[in-house]
Amino acid sequence: MSILVVGSVALDTIRTPFGEAEEVLGGSATYFSVAASFFGQVRMVAVVGEDFPDEHLEFLSSRGVDLRGLRKLPGRTFRWRGYYDYDLNEAHTLETQLNVFQDFRPEIPEEYRDSEFVFLANIDPELQSYVLDQVRSPQLTLCDTMNYWIEKKRPELLETISRVDYLLLNDSEARQLADEPNLIAAGRKLRAMGPSRVIIKKGEHGVVMLGDDTFFSLPAYPLETVFDPTGAGDSFGGGFLGAISRETALDEDAVRRAVVYGSVIASFAVEDFSCRRLRSLTLEEIEDRYREFTRITCF
Amino acid sequence: MSILVVGSVALDTIRTPFGEAEEVLGGSATYFSVAASFFGQVRMVAVVGEDFPDEHLEFLSSRGVDLRGLRKLPGRTFRWRGYYDYDLNEAHTLETQLNVFQDFRPEIPEEYRDSEFVFLANIDPELQSYVLDQVRSPQLTLCDTMNYWIEKKRPELLETISRVDYLLLNDSEARQLADEPNLIAAGRKLRAMGPSRVIIKKGEHGVVMLGDDTFFSLPAYPLETVFDPTGAGDSFGGGFLGAISRETALDEDAVRRAVVYGSVIASFAVEDFSCRRLRSLTLEEIEDRYREFTRITCF
Repeated sequence: MSILVVGSVALDTIRTPFGEAEEVLGGSATYFSVAASFFGQVRMVAVVGEDFPDEHLEFLSSRGVDLRGLRKLPGRTFRWRGYYDYDLNEAHTLETQLNVFQDFRPEIPEEYRDSEFVFLANIDPELQSYVLDQVRSPQLTLCDTMNYWIEKKRPELLETISRVDYLLLNDSEARQLADEPNLIAAGRKLRAMGPSRVIIKKGEHGVVMLGDDTFFSLPAYPLETVFDPTGAGDSFGGGFLGAISRETALDEDAVRRAVVYGSVIASFAVEDFSCRRLRSLTLEEIEDRYREFTRITCF
Repeated sequence: MSILVVGSVALDTIRTPFGEAEEVLGGSATYFSVAASFFGQVRMVAVVGEDFPDEHLEFLSSRGVDLRGLRKLPGRTFRWRGYYDYDLNEAHTLETQLNVFQDFRPEIPEEYRDSEFVFLANIDPELQSYVLDQVRSPQLTLCDTMNYWIEKKRPELLETISRVDYLLLNDSEARQLADEPNLIAAGRKLRAMGPSRVIIKKGEHGVVMLGDDTFFSLPAYPLETVFDPTGAGDSFGGGFLGAISRETALDEDAVRRAVVYGSVIASFAVEDFSCRRLRSLTLEEIEDRYREFTRITCF
């Protein structure tokens, strides 16, 4: 099954209470792709600059990621610099250099337009809608966003949301977008905006999913050290949509399993900077941790 | 099976985003007793003033609570006045009048000293230890505390904790007491202080329990309106210890079931001011919500 992601590829410079990393591989499309690559083949639409290291392209290719939609443009790659304090739920941005990402306009290659699973990573909602205009008849579309777009492009974001199947966002974004402090009530309001399912990421508190008369709540995997939370949400998205793409029917059970796989991959992603932990991750480790999720939640 | 609670009985004046209540029945021993009364007989050791309304005593008696250990002393009953903003996890205290609670020294009546299950509600840790000195050979002791004692009476609190079987506290207290920002690591440090299990309440994010090589995480029941969170933790404690007291063996499965029952009772308690919702609660509603917990967490 074919999975399309449209988002950012970046070079991140990050400080956490546990260490620092300079100009490491990052970006929403990157984390998503690497996470999803454990389950299926990913097609990436993104942009990098001339300075983007070949080793990163080789790494993504080694994960089976189809890079025909990744354009290399004159100029520098998108860069993000930030840090986390002990409250690892909150990223503090020190600097954002959009660089070649500034004028990113996602043209979906003809050979990608039949993609069955589509992830609209956190980019301008107008561009997200533009992607939806181009894909033919995807089986499932999943959309992420962030506070910036909620504040600056609310009408455009609502338009995008009304067109996607599932909405993925974090708890503070859900409260802000729904203008509702109670997270459950916020989730119901977001569902009324169009998506058949709303998946709310709560960081160390896990994830909740609201569907049509269904509600699922999964705690986070209990990590004693969250080394670097960057990319956790996109890794969740990749694990989730990757796992979904293997299912034969998208019923409640299947989607719940995918939420667990998303949480499994995210829990590994935060154990080291960048994609380092995902690089060495095995399918056996993924299945072990899936079973561990069963053990820590069953009663 | 006999359940002993030592704690406060209070008259609360509370404002939340949803309403106000003046001089309503409150206190840790009250919430605990009413919650536990759905599962077993509770013996209460506490103190009230001469102004304490008879109707509250009649209500507690109607729940089968043994009030022989409740002393009525000259003076006024303990009063708490506070409010909650939309972040219902944080209580803002406007006024605390200790009144007769100021000189509370819990003398356990002879006929209570054989109690098999003991809840040390949030009181001075020296008094908690004094209770432990008096009970004979309880099957299980459970201890709560708060930031005030962590700051003011740390050595005495550590002494109490080293003597109890299970420790119950909320997430910010766990981080503060363990001096550790990561909640899982904090839980492990608290276990090393003595208790065989540490149960950490996370409000709207549910509860986690750490035991000997075991870990259990349960999300909160998804409420669209938390009317008044006062007493949620003590209601959890009451539901938990009440449910435990019905079990024949205190194995992992039994204790997990008790965590779910505690969460069920707490989720009802916050649906109205004071014990109002618990007053009308039925065993059938409790079992329905228990099954609902299964539905929202299983995968």
